[in-house]
Amino acid sequence: MPLTMFDLCAADADVRFSPYCWRIKMALAHKSLPCEFIPWHFTEKGVIAVSGQGAVPVLVDGETTLSDSWVIAQYLETHYPASSLFGGDAGMQATLTLKHWMESQVMPSLFSILILDIYDALDEQDKRYFRESREARLGMTLEAFCQSSPEHIQRFQKQLHPARLTLRQQPFLGGQQPMFSDYLLFSLFMWARSISATSLLVVDDPIYAWRERMLDLYDGLARKSPQCEAARGSVRS
Amino acid sequence: MPLTMFDLCAADADVRFSPYCWRIKMALAHKSLPCEFIPWHFTEKGVIAVSGQGAVPVLVDGETTLSDSWVIAQYLETHYPASSLFGGDAGMQATLTLKHWMESQVMPSLFSILILDIYDALDEQDKRYFRESREARLGMTLEAFCQSSPEHIQRFQKQLHPARLTLRQQPFLGGQQPMFSDYLLFSLFMWARSISATSLLVVDDPIYAWRERMLDLYDGLARKSPQCEAARGSVRS
Repeated sequence: MPLTMFDLCAADADVRFSPYCWRIKMALAHKSLPCEFIPWHFTEKGVIAVSGQGAVPVLVDGETTLSDSWVIAQYLETHYPASSLFGGDAGMQATLTLKHWMESQVMPSLFSILILDIYDALDEQDKRYFRESREARLGMTLEAFCQSSPEHIQRFQKQLHPARLTLRQQPFLGGQQPMFSDYLLFSLFMWARSISATSLLVVDDPIYAWRERMLDLYDGLARKSPQCEAARGSVRS
Repeated sequence: MPLTMFDLCAADADVRFSPYCWRIKMALAHKSLPCEFIPWHFTEKGVIAVSGQGAVPVLVDGETTLSDSWVIAQYLETHYPASSLFGGDAGMQATLTLKHWMESQVMPSLFSILILDIYDALDEQDKRYFRESREARLGMTLEAFCQSSPEHIQRFQKQLHPARLTLRQQPFLGGQQPMFSDYLLFSLFMWARSISATSLLVVDDPIYAWRERMLDLYDGLARKSPQCEAARGSVRS
């Protein structure tokens, strides 16, 4: 029986923009695991209630239902060990702190760049949910939180510097081949690419060339993924 | 023949404060490799000229002379594989980006906190060298660069957040046992501990408890290491 994953979608249900879902989508492709991706809206909490929480990705493998992208990645590594995502326990441990770096220091500044693009991409019901839940969490309006000036994009680029230093030396964070650390970082760019026309990188940045390599992986899985009309509008760099 | 390492020292030659040297000192202890540590002053460039550059650590293993702490760590891993520092290639790759994170984002803010304490710890000849070389690099005086207010210490603490999130879950960045990632971070605290009385962490920070565990490793190797008089003066937290 193939795997099933609930995958956050925009108003256009073909547009899948969640960075947490993209990590797992890339990990499944890395392991050549077939999976059915079911579009899921923010407000469809009932559909994933069996997972005991309200966020995606949710992965269903036979009798097993899992949530939390890190838990899912470890489950895949344990139950489908071929084509390792971590290269053993030590690799998994070091990747855990990289995950925390990306989630606590890189992702927040990208979220402030993208927040209005995310909002614009949602259907009406999800728009209401997103505005209410995020404004309560942030303590301000989406419009007040949004920081997408060139200076803020430069700040985001600066926060990526540790990855840049690695990618100056080698094609992937994982070395000669991509590993889960690459999918963690790449998923942030798929978040942006799916719903925003904002240029995040300059062409001569080693991260730009790496992103091109990542877009090409697995027969162009990520490059072929549909984008919102607003995201398709501009030449991206 | 035991290994030999040139190890940066303060005016008091028993005080060894280089974070780059501490990484390797901890790695040697991790692998139970005996090593003779030779105190070295910033201005003794001639002594290590055989390494082809002017910075420590320099490790001498028979006919082999190595510089650059990352190169040395990989040499030790290859030539003395027992008690792995990285747990394989994937662990080494993920640790490389952690190294870049610590060096490009954590270390600079700690350097601005410590810079005058470092200066004060040096002998007169090294003081002149340190002031001239660092002021040329920084484009300002040491005094203008120094930022050691409570707000700057809080900024440093905030930059450590990725490590904090990992250490909330497990005793070491490496998991149940310390790995090279732990030595990379810990070496920053040995830099501070050796020459400064500044309190960098609050007692209920998981990083504080981790630092205590690191100080206890290898029969208290780091805890027993001599400190400058200025660093011994205060109750540290």
